[in-house]
Amino acid sequence: MPHWTALVAEKKQRQLESIPQEWIVTPPSDSTLDVSAFPETCGLLNAREIEITNTPVNVLLEKLACAAWTAVDVTTAFYKRAIVAHQLVNCLTEIFVDRALVRAAELDDYLKNTGKVVGPLHGLPISLKDQLCIKGLETTIGYVSWIGQYADKNAVLVDVLIECGAVPFVRTNVPQTLAWPESFNNVFGRTTNPYNRSLTSGGSSGGEGALVALKGSPLGVGSDLGGSVRIPSAFCGLYGLRPSYGRVPYYGARGTLEGQDSVLPVFGPMTNSVVGVKVFMKAVVNAKPWLKDPLVVRKKWDEDEYNLVDHGSGKDLCFAIMWDDGVVVPHPPIRRSLEIVKAGLQKAGHNVVDWKPIKHRLLGDITRDIWNAASAEEFMITTSVTGEPIIATMELDDADAAVASFRPQNGGITAYQLWQVQKLRQDIRKEYLDHWEATACETGTGRPVDAIICPAAPFAATPHGKNRYVDYTIVWNALDYPAAIFPVTTVDSILDGKAPPHAFYDDFDKDIYEMYDPEIFKNAPVCLQLVGRTLEEEAVIRMTEIVDAALLAAK
Amino acid sequence: MPHWTALVAEKKQRQLESIPQEWIVTPPSDSTLDVSAFPETCGLLNAREIEITNTPVNVLLEKLACAAWTAVDVTTAFYKRAIVAHQLVNCLTEIFVDRALVRAAELDDYLKNTGKVVGPLHGLPISLKDQLCIKGLETTIGYVSWIGQYADKNAVLVDVLIECGAVPFVRTNVPQTLAWPESFNNVFGRTTNPYNRSLTSGGSSGGEGALVALKGSPLGVGSDLGGSVRIPSAFCGLYGLRPSYGRVPYYGARGTLEGQDSVLPVFGPMTNSVVGVKVFMKAVVNAKPWLKDPLVVRKKWDEDEYNLVDHGSGKDLCFAIMWDDGVVVPHPPIRRSLEIVKAGLQKAGHNVVDWKPIKHRLLGDITRDIWNAASAEEFMITTSVTGEPIIATMELDDADAAVASFRPQNGGITAYQLWQVQKLRQDIRKEYLDHWEATACETGTGRPVDAIICPAAPFAATPHGKNRYVDYTIVWNALDYPAAIFPVTTVDSILDGKAPPHAFYDDFDKDIYEMYDPEIFKNAPVCLQLVGRTLEEEAVIRMTEIVDAALLAAK
Repeated sequence: MPHWTALVAEKKQRQLESIPQEWIVTPPSDSTLDVSAFPETCGLLNAREIEITNTPVNVLLEKLACAAWTAVDVTTAFYKRAIVAHQLVNCLTEIFVDRALVRAAELDDYLKNTGKVVGPLHGLPISLKDQLCIKGLETTIGYVSWIGQYADKNAVLVDVLIECGAVPFVRTNVPQTLAWPESFNNVFGRTTNPYNRSLTSGGSSGGEGALVALKGSPLGVGSDLGGSVRIPSAFCGLYGLRPSYGRVPYYGARGTLEGQDSVLPVFGPMTNSVVGVKVFMKAVVNAKPWLKDPLVVRKKWDEDEYNLVDHGSGKDLCFAIMWDDGVVVPHPPIRRSLEIVKAGLQKAGHNVVDWKPIKHRLLGDITRDIWNAASAEEFMITTSVTGEPIIATMELDDADAAVASFRPQNGGITAYQLWQVQKLRQDIRKEYLDHWEATACETGTGRPVDAIICPAAPFAATPHGKNRYVDYTIVWNALDYPAAIFPVTTVDSILDGKAPPHAFYDDFDKDIYEMYDPEIFKNAPVCLQLVGRTLEEEAVIRMTEIVDAALLAAK
Repeated sequence: MPHWTALVAEKKQRQLESIPQEWIVTPPSDSTLDVSAFPETCGLLNAREIEITNTPVNVLLEKLACAAWTAVDVTTAFYKRAIVAHQLVNCLTEIFVDRALVRAAELDDYLKNTGKVVGPLHGLPISLKDQLCIKGLETTIGYVSWIGQYADKNAVLVDVLIECGAVPFVRTNVPQTLAWPESFNNVFGRTTNPYNRSLTSGGSSGGEGALVALKGSPLGVGSDLGGSVRIPSAFCGLYGLRPSYGRVPYYGARGTLEGQDSVLPVFGPMTNSVVGVKVFMKAVVNAKPWLKDPLVVRKKWDEDEYNLVDHGSGKDLCFAIMWDDGVVVPHPPIRRSLEIVKAGLQKAGHNVVDWKPIKHRLLGDITRDIWNAASAEEFMITTSVTGEPIIATMELDDADAAVASFRPQNGGITAYQLWQVQKLRQDIRKEYLDHWEATACETGTGRPVDAIICPAAPFAATPHGKNRYVDYTIVWNALDYPAAIFPVTTVDSILDGKAPPHAFYDDFDKDIYEMYDPEIFKNAPVCLQLVGRTLEEEAVIRMTEIVDAALLAAK
């Protein structure tokens, strides 16, 4: 077996060769932090390609369905922009231009010959997190040990998307093990944030976040075990959705903590408009994925739920804002974004109350206990094939030292111990459900709170290695509540000056407070999270549209 | 702490005192095996009470809703019959006559004063397996160690049933730990089969099975982890349903293997008609139990699914019969019942093909591996409070010897080992789903097989201690397929003579073959199982109605 670094070198060389040479550009120097405008100014894309790639998903689909734009043209445009994006922020893993263009041409032929679209996503290029196996391609999720393992079949979701008419065209970067909220691994390196490359694009779907932000893809699929769709969506200024367990097929993907049946990973969309989220979810759910993945819930797309029949038909909603989670107080830009949303919703005639979080610290700890029951053992076994180091930090500089000191935190716990933690989690899920139901007496609508609006993280995109608190997302995974990300503003050094010290919950809260400096977070997008009830994806999407419209109207 | 036998004596005395003295009868001697006619001949019930207790659930509800019969009268009638049943087959645990009659009187008043019913189960007495906590009552599930632990709140399902207007009135017997397919424990002793008391009523919901068979309850709630609704339903000649995970609320019940998140227990109805199954499921699902139990799936009762929209609207269905599971060949009465159903369905115009089981042995083994990951540890910790013996056999005679030799089979496995088994199970679930979908090419309908019909066990109700093979039910728990039990015939010594030896799969198959003797199984009911797709309860109920009607028409 060659040394792991030789395997990486060979893989990186193959990746380079997969890029059409004529699409190689000269990116700005590393000192240029904001590269978001570069794809449109670099000269590789013509005006029509720029127009195509700036078009939201619903309009793209209309243009494709009436053959105003061909799938080949649309795929080519996004492909070029994706390759530019990759050269700016290192967001791609697998690149398969020829395959995608062949598929796009087939779709164009089908439409020409039959007058019909293949499905609701006809001709739409879709980027996929580096977990979603495609027959004949490798899926490493950043493990050197998985280089050279070619899939013999598609993940179920890939099959579903292809049946819907989509064109998978690139896969995107992740952290080794997927168990980090940033995106760095020994195979493909680090993905950076296009709005400020000294910041992380988040993780574990950080390649998607950066790619979609640069409009190198109209719609990406990330996965979310503890925030991995929402954190990069929030850090990159996107719309994203973490659906409930079992709404979107997961089977056949490579992943982490495999066989863990408790707090489950889910796939979800990341895109530049809330309508893109809806288009994806409706297409996937209407494809009856429960006939392909045994863990998918047999629940049709429910237009009544989308029309908020259980929420007074969407008139006079009551949102609850969670200003902080009782563990870590958010930075000033996050606080300001919550105030913007509150004012916008009130102006639109909705009621806004405060959300009282209960047991968030415990929920986070329990979830980690469940995952860490055997995570170290899994990571050790996986990496032992090549002897690649297990990455112990996302920091820029001291990776080697940390790697050397990495040890599994424990040798795993027993199944009985695991059951006790899982039982405690079930009890807290019940307690939280009752807590939510009990809000009916304070909303003024007769209903419990319709949705919670809260931070996706206590900060905007952090410097690399500093994204050290993810419980603003993890708690909703633990509770299995669907949660959407939507953009509100960007960090503004004038509006978002450092706040005076608050009464710190503990030293960790103080550390997070102290890391804030508006200059460091310069230009970072600020997004928030809208949280609904389990399996209420339709309502969460509709309420996110309502919040989005209220923000637009209030501007 | 008193010796555990003293705790039992005290509890049994309290149970005896909870029985109205005027309802004590003189049951037939132990040598009378078939006691099914006794409740109507013993003289305790008057003609009207006999009429009430022989009325199916839907008609009972009509009579109650129009005040033709009062809830007090109906509850009293079933109560008397339940107490008679208990004296015949030892089926009850908690008996709370006064409480039930108070509730029934409240319902009568409500209807009188408002002209409205409280809910869809207005006035219906419902018996509950000894897991479903009721505020102020004990819930021992047969553990001496749990005597004296009084619930401070109702299980969620109890709350839902009460809101629906039901009248919980008794709780019913189970095996210690719930992890047996018969019903014997150190607190309440053994429940026997009313059609032949030398046979078991099954388990773990064996008290329900015996009680409902004697019409001491119009509708009982059992739970099913590996067959615990279906086995006693089948052994006692009832209709029963094992719903998918999360269709009926489970939270707040006492149970076994707590915190195990993989192959989950579910509650389901046991009753004397398929319409009773439907009434229960529709009432519970329409009560939006997902607002009370975080594990309940947000999925409304779907009238389209009930009308078999996904199954050609129920015309020309294709059923697949599984004659044996490739592990244990069923006894002659089971084989004959499958032939009866096949002929009946064909006569009704439906197509019938053979079901090819795949990996049933492995599915059974994996499921046991998951449960036994920590079961022994749980049982030891629970029983250590009083030092009561852990029961190691359901045999009549050698319990003491077996108890003395009981040891946990292992000290539990690690969480990592558990994850590997759970992962294997997920893969088999996918394989089975694909296997089912692939039947579309052989049904003649263009659809995959609409439902599987198969044995619920390779035998009818066995002698006590001999129910040693439960994989005809366990596999569907492992796959999470809903499964209904329906009665077909009874063991007939002439029609069901011993078959010549077949080519045995192994020694165990031979053992099961050898245990058959029509005289031993005399008078035992013979039921079968109808199996559908995950979360397709509505369709499973409708198809069971269709099979039931076909059997009636073919008689």
